[in-house]
Amino acid sequence: MNDEKLMTLLHEFKQLGATSMGGVTRCVYDDNWSLAQKKYVAIANDYGLYCFCDKMGTIYAATSDHISHKPVILTGSHMDTVVNGGWLDGIYGVVSSVLAVGQLFQKFGTPKIPLCAVSFSEEEGSRFDATFTGSRYLTHQLDDAVFNLKDRTGATFNQERQNRVTELRQVTPIGIPDFKIRSYIELHIEQGNTLDQSPANIAVVTDIVGQKRLLITTKGISNHAGTTQMSGRVDAMRKAVDLMTKIYSSLELMKGLRFTIGKIIAFPNVANVIPEKVDIALDIRHIDQNVLDQAFEQVTQIINAVGATYRLTTNVVATPMDYQLQQQVIRSTKQEKLVGERLFSGAGHDAQVIANSKAPSVMIFVPSQNGVSHVPQENTAEFDLLAGQRVLKRVLYDLAYCS
Amino acid sequence: MNDEKLMTLLHEFKQLGATSMGGVTRCVYDDNWSLAQKKYVAIANDYGLYCFCDKMGTIYAATSDHISHKPVILTGSHMDTVVNGGWLDGIYGVVSSVLAVGQLFQKFGTPKIPLCAVSFSEEEGSRFDATFTGSRYLTHQLDDAVFNLKDRTGATFNQERQNRVTELRQVTPIGIPDFKIRSYIELHIEQGNTLDQSPANIAVVTDIVGQKRLLITTKGISNHAGTTQMSGRVDAMRKAVDLMTKIYSSLELMKGLRFTIGKIIAFPNVANVIPEKVDIALDIRHIDQNVLDQAFEQVTQIINAVGATYRLTTNVVATPMDYQLQQQVIRSTKQEKLVGERLFSGAGHDAQVIANSKAPSVMIFVPSQNGVSHVPQENTAEFDLLAGQRVLKRVLYDLAYCS
Repeated sequence: MNDEKLMTLLHEFKQLGATSMGGVTRCVYDDNWSLAQKKYVAIANDYGLYCFCDKMGTIYAATSDHISHKPVILTGSHMDTVVNGGWLDGIYGVVSSVLAVGQLFQKFGTPKIPLCAVSFSEEEGSRFDATFTGSRYLTHQLDDAVFNLKDRTGATFNQERQNRVTELRQVTPIGIPDFKIRSYIELHIEQGNTLDQSPANIAVVTDIVGQKRLLITTKGISNHAGTTQMSGRVDAMRKAVDLMTKIYSSLELMKGLRFTIGKIIAFPNVANVIPEKVDIALDIRHIDQNVLDQAFEQVTQIINAVGATYRLTTNVVATPMDYQLQQQVIRSTKQEKLVGERLFSGAGHDAQVIANSKAPSVMIFVPSQNGVSHVPQENTAEFDLLAGQRVLKRVLYDLAYCS
Repeated sequence: MNDEKLMTLLHEFKQLGATSMGGVTRCVYDDNWSLAQKKYVAIANDYGLYCFCDKMGTIYAATSDHISHKPVILTGSHMDTVVNGGWLDGIYGVVSSVLAVGQLFQKFGTPKIPLCAVSFSEEEGSRFDATFTGSRYLTHQLDDAVFNLKDRTGATFNQERQNRVTELRQVTPIGIPDFKIRSYIELHIEQGNTLDQSPANIAVVTDIVGQKRLLITTKGISNHAGTTQMSGRVDAMRKAVDLMTKIYSSLELMKGLRFTIGKIIAFPNVANVIPEKVDIALDIRHIDQNVLDQAFEQVTQIINAVGATYRLTTNVVATPMDYQLQQQVIRSTKQEKLVGERLFSGAGHDAQVIANSKAPSVMIFVPSQNGVSHVPQENTAEFDLLAGQRVLKRVLYDLAYCS
């Protein structure tokens, strides 16, 4: 194993988008993103891997230049970050996987089943209002409307994409990823606090939660807070508080459900005016789609009962990870003499998108210190980072060379 | 009575600040405000009243040019409006009172007790973050910090004030309002819906509510909505909803209390992030200061119980109107063969400021159609507008000529 290389590269990638606040901003198609994808190509080339770039700017680094239509073992994560995010989210899996594939290729030559590392162009949705565009393109789940999206400066997704792909063409060929995914394995930091509070170093992800997000609206009649009698009021805030209380009471009884009211906007939002409208965003997640659907049903009944309305703004189905791949990760963890456990992911990942395209997928998590992510404080102990990469490498070896 | 004059003038003043949305914007010291105060001087001069302007730009129009240190009967309201407000708030009392004083003076000559109409410079606080600056200056309740306030464009209160007073000096002398207020009578639209739903045309105001406004803050720990376990969360929104529910439950039991949560701001206010802070503005009003204090005490207990904090941003004491002046208004209403009733004001007024300086004060209300005010739809039937002015005129006649 070449432990130093991983840490050295992670620190080098941290500089590509380093912010004055100690975080990293490397959004899709920005300058640092472009430098980072070029650096990825250089690393892969050093190991003699065969690289190409797809039309989204995702880079593939394979153990063979003939992977068209073949079933390959794909492994990787995403190159982009949120604004002022952490130094590990995405890039940890990107660097670990290209090193693993490169080192296995260098040491053991061409595997029985082709290995392909991948650095997805985008996952976070922090520049344009679309997420997972890299893995959605790969698995034919991308809506063409994405290409017309604009960022805050008015730059379009499509123009920025074209410019960067043209740039990347200078360092690697452009190609169409028309291989079949036999397995997808993604190594990632947990971003929550379960592993950090557990003796385990490694988790195999059993499920990625289904998620529904509702924008709920209560309506009232705006009027003067001092001159309007209490009895005649139609107060959108009063309704919203009633609604939220009922939602909390109802959902708090549902085991395993994670739900959050993170956003509220009142209109006109003035201290001495009765609100005419209150918008509330409710996010609900569960690993069991039936429970999620049941929670959603309860919420919509409450919404109807108080005379509010809603719009479903996010709807992602609960996604179990492939059972055989989970067993493979557990075996490899034991072989590496590490403590592993099973847990589900409360956050969405490229592995969810890929699993939803019927490709067997699995994720390997390492602990996030204090469970924080998407902030400059995001961190994982070096021991855990190296442990995760060792497990990934062993899984890939077993799948590609021993099957 | 000269009924046409009142309606003609109200329509003329409506043009000074008319908005494309059908409302009126005439904020203190803006161009239309200046035109309107000059127009007021011209009206007063036509009746032979003695005008002067104080350092705030408030115009006084008296039946004598020697009112220094004398006890006078003061009557008027404010010249400014809120942004895109109605055509009657303030200006109805301003025009009615100068016409009443002017017509009485013209017909009956110098009264036993001097009458003085007033057009206060400012009451609404819609340009600078300070209210009642006209009446507060007159009654020595103005904080000098007001002069340093800036509007949204960065213009200072003091510079704007100076410029406009210099302009007004072209049409009327500048003076110091060092008279004693024997009585203050203010005619105003109700702005609520009590009179509109009653057979009465006229109300005498018995009390102006005391008001407390609290900015309440709950604190949490911001984290990912998907990866953070429910059990470990510190959710500022969960606390805020709990707090608001308890406040509603507690205050809804208090008879006569008007309370409103009109404003809420969550941080960071993102759908998939647990809020770290929620700010809530609570406005509570009651005519009985003891009940208001009791409500405040209950709210602070709830705030402490849920571990929130608060800041008191508004604190105005409940103000009873002078009983003898109320009786005078009731007599005059009967003499005019109009139906009157007593009610309290849920909104603050210059009469509250003046009453708090120990000057006997009273208000006369006319109905607001549908109870709406501070919007372009603000309206009062012509019959009611004229009725209110007749009552005011009779009150002034009895107090000034017959006592």
